[in-house]
Amino acid sequence: MSGTLWGLGVGPGDPELLTTKAIRLLGSLPVLAWPAPLEGDGMARSIAAAYIPAGKVEIAIRLSFRPERDDTDEAYGKAAESIAGHLAAGRDVGVLCEGDPLFFGSFIYLLNRLRGRFATRVVPGVSSPMAAAAMAVRPLALLDDAVAIIPATRPDAQIRALLEPAEAAVLMKVGRHLPRIKALLAAMGLLECAVAVERATLADQRILPLAEAETLSYFSVILVHP
Amino acid sequence: MSGTLWGLGVGPGDPELLTTKAIRLLGSLPVLAWPAPLEGDGMARSIAAAYIPAGKVEIAIRLSFRPERDDTDEAYGKAAESIAGHLAAGRDVGVLCEGDPLFFGSFIYLLNRLRGRFATRVVPGVSSPMAAAAMAVRPLALLDDAVAIIPATRPDAQIRALLEPAEAAVLMKVGRHLPRIKALLAAMGLLECAVAVERATLADQRILPLAEAETLSYFSVILVHP
Repeated sequence: MSGTLWGLGVGPGDPELLTTKAIRLLGSLPVLAWPAPLEGDGMARSIAAAYIPAGKVEIAIRLSFRPERDDTDEAYGKAAESIAGHLAAGRDVGVLCEGDPLFFGSFIYLLNRLRGRFATRVVPGVSSPMAAAAMAVRPLALLDDAVAIIPATRPDAQIRALLEPAEAAVLMKVGRHLPRIKALLAAMGLLECAVAVERATLADQRILPLAEAETLSYFSVILVHP
Repeated sequence: MSGTLWGLGVGPGDPELLTTKAIRLLGSLPVLAWPAPLEGDGMARSIAAAYIPAGKVEIAIRLSFRPERDDTDEAYGKAAESIAGHLAAGRDVGVLCEGDPLFFGSFIYLLNRLRGRFATRVVPGVSSPMAAAAMAVRPLALLDDAVAIIPATRPDAQIRALLEPAEAAVLMKVGRHLPRIKALLAAMGLLECAVAVERATLADQRILPLAEAETLSYFSVILVHP
């Protein structure tokens, strides 16, 4: 009998923001996989480290994160075959995911490759828009409010079309797009309604008015609430 | 010295989906408040029940949930004064919230009344869009995808304007709006891409193609992923 593929959300960064279900599965699943840079443990495993007992089989999914050579497909293809071997041998495999596995989670790359062949389950996690709002103590939505979740990588015209009909917006993956996003929100009269939250819930988090942000890491979100 | 007002996300329903931080605070805070119908414990307290030790001071925020007489303002006004009394006396107060406190959470009513007077902190929780996606094992977003979070209470034209520029949408608060939403999505050619998830992560959850849904409770979301 084949094993089950589990996507495990480990939340935004603070190890106290894992769910008890994710912690239980980190303890019981025999094989754990996690995305990481070419060296080191990566964010997801670092968040979950205190809950991972010694003696697990661990599969590092190594990514170079170099825009000039996208190795995502190659790395996830290789990881999927390694994971498939464990599943076929009857071993359950957990894949650690920052935030939530199905909300911009690279778990989706493995799901797309393996879901036809193996049973698949997902443990949802606290995701970055909610974590950022909590740290800034800024409501995201109430009553009939609509919220647009928008990657900052999208072109200006598309960001505008997504943002204009909504009461609130969360811009994800800001990083190097910061100057363009600031200019766009300023042109829309929204710069003063925007707060940047970098590395929400981690010890070195930053919360500041977007107008004052000069640089932001990839692990940042912008909350816009006119 | 005054106490701190805490918003505590207790997640979508499964008691295993509380975070360890929420569980720790449920144990340590001396006063807990929770919204509920006129009788009984209500959803948030029921989810958290196993983690609440005996001997807490508990404040029930009683709401009639009758559309013909909205008592929300009255109930939260009264609760805010009771909570303010504890905070002024130096006792920390936790407010239990289904899902996440700042994502359609009634905690916002208390925050708006008390934040100027007392220190306020929020523990984010797993919210219903992520829980529904996890239970249905349906990705919400990847890479440059935009996601629109839309209350089904909005008029058709607004839902269309919010939905059209996004790659995925989550319709919240469906309940009695189900027939209209089905007709709208059918007119947009999206009915076949829509899945309904009712009471996600609870023992009696239902997951079904929206086209087959005849009734849905208020605690339902629709995932639309063209």
